[in-house]
Amino acid sequence: MARTTTRIEQVMAHVRAGIASRTQVPGTRLPSVRAQARSLAVSVSTVVEAYERLAAEGVITPRPGAGFYVAGPVAPLALTQLGPRLDREVDPLWVSRQSLETDPSVLKPGCGWLPASWMYEEGLRRALRAQARAPSCELVDYATPTGDPALRQLLSRRMAAIGIEAAPGQLMLTESGTHAIDLICRFLLKPGDTVLVDDPCYFNFHALLKAHQVQVVGVPYTPQGPDVALFAQALQAHSPRLYITNSGTHNPTGATLSPLVAHRLLKLIDQSGLVTVEDDIYADFESQPAPRLAAFDGLARVIHIGSFSKTVSASIRCGYIAARPDWIDGLIDLKLATTFGGGRLAADIILKTLTDSGYRKHMDALRLRLARARDETATRLQKLGVKPWLKPEAGMFLWCRLPQGTDAAAVARSCLAQGVVMAPGNAFSQSLSAGDFMRFNVSQCADDKVFGVLARALAVRNVSA
Amino acid sequence: MARTTTRIEQVMAHVRAGIASRTQVPGTRLPSVRAQARSLAVSVSTVVEAYERLAAEGVITPRPGAGFYVAGPVAPLALTQLGPRLDREVDPLWVSRQSLETDPSVLKPGCGWLPASWMYEEGLRRALRAQARAPSCELVDYATPTGDPALRQLLSRRMAAIGIEAAPGQLMLTESGTHAIDLICRFLLKPGDTVLVDDPCYFNFHALLKAHQVQVVGVPYTPQGPDVALFAQALQAHSPRLYITNSGTHNPTGATLSPLVAHRLLKLIDQSGLVTVEDDIYADFESQPAPRLAAFDGLARVIHIGSFSKTVSASIRCGYIAARPDWIDGLIDLKLATTFGGGRLAADIILKTLTDSGYRKHMDALRLRLARARDETATRLQKLGVKPWLKPEAGMFLWCRLPQGTDAAAVARSCLAQGVVMAPGNAFSQSLSAGDFMRFNVSQCADDKVFGVLARALAVRNVSA
Repeated sequence: MARTTTRIEQVMAHVRAGIASRTQVPGTRLPSVRAQARSLAVSVSTVVEAYERLAAEGVITPRPGAGFYVAGPVAPLALTQLGPRLDREVDPLWVSRQSLETDPSVLKPGCGWLPASWMYEEGLRRALRAQARAPSCELVDYATPTGDPALRQLLSRRMAAIGIEAAPGQLMLTESGTHAIDLICRFLLKPGDTVLVDDPCYFNFHALLKAHQVQVVGVPYTPQGPDVALFAQALQAHSPRLYITNSGTHNPTGATLSPLVAHRLLKLIDQSGLVTVEDDIYADFESQPAPRLAAFDGLARVIHIGSFSKTVSASIRCGYIAARPDWIDGLIDLKLATTFGGGRLAADIILKTLTDSGYRKHMDALRLRLARARDETATRLQKLGVKPWLKPEAGMFLWCRLPQGTDAAAVARSCLAQGVVMAPGNAFSQSLSAGDFMRFNVSQCADDKVFGVLARALAVRNVSA
Repeated sequence: MARTTTRIEQVMAHVRAGIASRTQVPGTRLPSVRAQARSLAVSVSTVVEAYERLAAEGVITPRPGAGFYVAGPVAPLALTQLGPRLDREVDPLWVSRQSLETDPSVLKPGCGWLPASWMYEEGLRRALRAQARAPSCELVDYATPTGDPALRQLLSRRMAAIGIEAAPGQLMLTESGTHAIDLICRFLLKPGDTVLVDDPCYFNFHALLKAHQVQVVGVPYTPQGPDVALFAQALQAHSPRLYITNSGTHNPTGATLSPLVAHRLLKLIDQSGLVTVEDDIYADFESQPAPRLAAFDGLARVIHIGSFSKTVSASIRCGYIAARPDWIDGLIDLKLATTFGGGRLAADIILKTLTDSGYRKHMDALRLRLARARDETATRLQKLGVKPWLKPEAGMFLWCRLPQGTDAAAVARSCLAQGVVMAPGNAFSQSLSAGDFMRFNVSQCADDKVFGVLARALAVRNVSA
C-alpha cells in the first residue's frame, strides 16, 4: 500500500513538474491514462488515481469523454506551434502571408496566381455593370443553401465535358476552394485521423490539415501521379481516412496524372474505403483534359472540388463541392452552421463571366501565353543551373531543382531581402525532402529583376557552401 | 483469474453488442476507460484489457491520445444527430433551410433579415457601377491577410463612436459574421469545452456550437440582459471557456443590455477569465447606442464581431473581428489555413456603400420604418392574443408569447403548410423552455396573410387543446 501511494505521488509530481516548467501549458491535454502509465512504467490504476487527486486539487480538469487538461486560462490554437518547428521560409503560413501582402514593388514568382493584367478583366467589368442592373434580390438576399441553381447547372455541364457525372443537386457552392476542402475535413475527420497528401503538394494543404490536428502522411509524387506502390504501403501502414490531391495540373510539380496511375489508384481507393478529395482549381488551364478520379469513380468515394480564383478572380470568393447526395446534405448543414447563408453576388458575377462570349477566347489566349512563359522561364532558369523537374503540359508552375547543394530556404531568404518572394521546396514537402527545389510561377517572372536577384542569391549560396 | 477473464469478456461482449445494434456506429468514440469502468462497475484495468483485445481483433481502433473508436468506414459528422432529437420545427438547421429557400410565394415572418425592398438598393447599385471602373487589382486579386485597410479604418472609427477602442491593426475582415464566430470558436475551443449562451439566443449559435461538439449552457435572459445571479452560478458550476452574446439589440428578444447589468457581467467575466464574444450585427439599427461589453473591457477578454448582412447586403459576404493583437495574429493564421485569402470585391463594395452620402439618410428612414412596423405588428398580434415580451427600442424582432397552452412548434407546422415560415421559440432556447414563444420579424409582416394564417393555426390549436 505504501509503495502504491508513493507511485501515485510520483506521477502527481511528474505532472506538476511538467506544468511548472511550462512543458504542459494551461488548456493542453495530459497524456491518456494508458500512455502515461506506459511512459512512467506504472499501472493504469496508479495514473487514474494520480489524475483524480490532481483534479480534486484543481491542478487539472477532467473533460467528460475527453481526458484531463491542464487547468488555467484559455490557450488558443496556435497553428505555428503545432507540429515540428519549421524555418520561417518554408512555413506554409509565412509563405502565404508574404505572398498576400500587397506591396506593389515586391515581385512574387513564389505566389500561386496570375498577375492582375493576365486575368479576364473586361469580362469582369461587364459582369459588374450587368450586376448593377440585376433584380434587387440578387443584390441583397442570402443565397439558397446549395447556392445559385444556374451556376450549379453550368458546373454540372462543365464537369460532364471532362467525364464527371454530377447532377446540379450533387453540387454545393462554397466561399472558395479552400473553404470547400475545409468543410469536407470538418465533415469527415476527427483530430488524430491520418490524411494522405502528395509529397510535394500545395503548401496550404499542410496549414489546413494542421488546423484539423490530424496526422499527415506524404506519398512521393512521380511525373505520372502518386507513386502507386508507396501509396499502397501508406494505406496498409496508416489506415488513412482521406487523400487530398490536385487533379488536372498538379501543384507544385505541373505533372499530369496518367490514366494507368489513375486506374491503379482507384483500385486501391476502392479496396481500402479511403475517401479522396480531388482539387480541380486549375481545370481551365488544360488544353487536353487529364483523367479525373471523380470521372472513373462516379463520385462514390471521390469528392470533386474547384473554384474560380485562378482563372476568373480571386477577389470574388466562390468555390464548389461535387459529392454523393447524402454527403452534400450533411455538408449543407455544416455550411449553414458555420457560415450561415452564402452570398448571391459572387456566384452571379462568376456565372456572368463564365458565360460571357469572350471567356473561351480569353482562356485560349491565356493558355498560349502561359505556354510561351513556361518555355521562356525554363530557358532563363536553366542558364542559372536551375532545372525544371519536368516540362508541364499546362498551368503556371515550374517545379525546379536548384544547383546541387543549394538550400532553397536560404535562397528564398536572400531574395526576400531584395523584394522578391520565392516558394522554397520544403514548404510543399511533408517529409521536408525538397530542400533544393523551388516552385516558379512563370506568369510572375516577366521582370528581369527576378532572375538578377536569384542569380546573386545562388552565387552567394554557392560561395558560402 | 477466471473471474477477471470473465469480466473482461463481459466488457467485450457489451461493446460488441453496442456495435451490432448500431448504438455505436463506425467512427464513433467508445466511452473512456474510466467512464466505461464506472458504468459497468468493473475495474479500469479490466476495461483496458477488454479494449486492447477488441483492438487486436480489429473491432475497434485506438487513436493515439484520443481513445478508442469503432472501426469501419468513415462516419461523417451529422449535425442533426448530435445532441437531443428535436422536433423538426425547432431544429435550428431546419429553420435556416426553410428561411433560405427562395420560393417567392412563401412569406417569412420567421426569418432574420429585411425584405429586399427595404435595403439600400440604390447605394449598392452605385457601388457596383463604381466597382466596374475600379483598378484591376481590386477586381481580381486576393485581399491582404487582415483585409482592406480602408474598410478596417472606417470600422475602427465607427467603433470609437460607440466607445470601443480598436486600432485598424486589431481588426480582421472575415467572410461573414457567422464565419467570424466560427473562427473564434476554432481558435479558442476544444470538443467537450463548455460555452455559455443567452437563453433564448440566435438559433444558429446552437447549430454552430454543435459543429464544435461543445457543451452548451443557457443563461436566462432578462429585459436588461442575462440574469447576473444565474450567470455567476453557471460560471461556478461549469467553468465555461466562452460566452457568446448579442450586443446592441438582442436576438430574438429585442432587449437592450442595461449599464448596470453590463458592469456586473464584466466583473464576473474579469474574475473568471472567461472570454466573451459580442456579436454586434444589429448595431446600425440603434438610435441610442446600448452599452457594449467591448467598450468597458477594452478588448482584453471581449472579442467584438459584426457584419453588414442585415443593413447593407446579405448577398455580399463580409464580416469582421476586433480583438487583442496577439489573438488577431493567431486568427489570421487560422483564416489563411482554412479559407486562404479573403476577397477584395466584397469589402470594396461594402466600403463604397457605407461611405456613400445616402447611407446615413437611408438608415434614418429605415429606423423610423421599423419603429412603425414594430408598433403595427404588435397591435395586430395582440388582437390574436399574442403578446410581445417587451417593447424593443430598435430592430426588426418582436419576441412574443402565444395564448396560454399553445405549442409554438405545432403552430409553425400549420403555418408552413399554408406557405408561412415561422420561428418557434424553442429553436432559440437551449433549455427548450420557450415552447409557447415565437419570434416575429416585423419587416416581413406587411402581408395580411401572415395574420390570417396565424389566426387559423392558433384557433385550431386552441380547439384541439
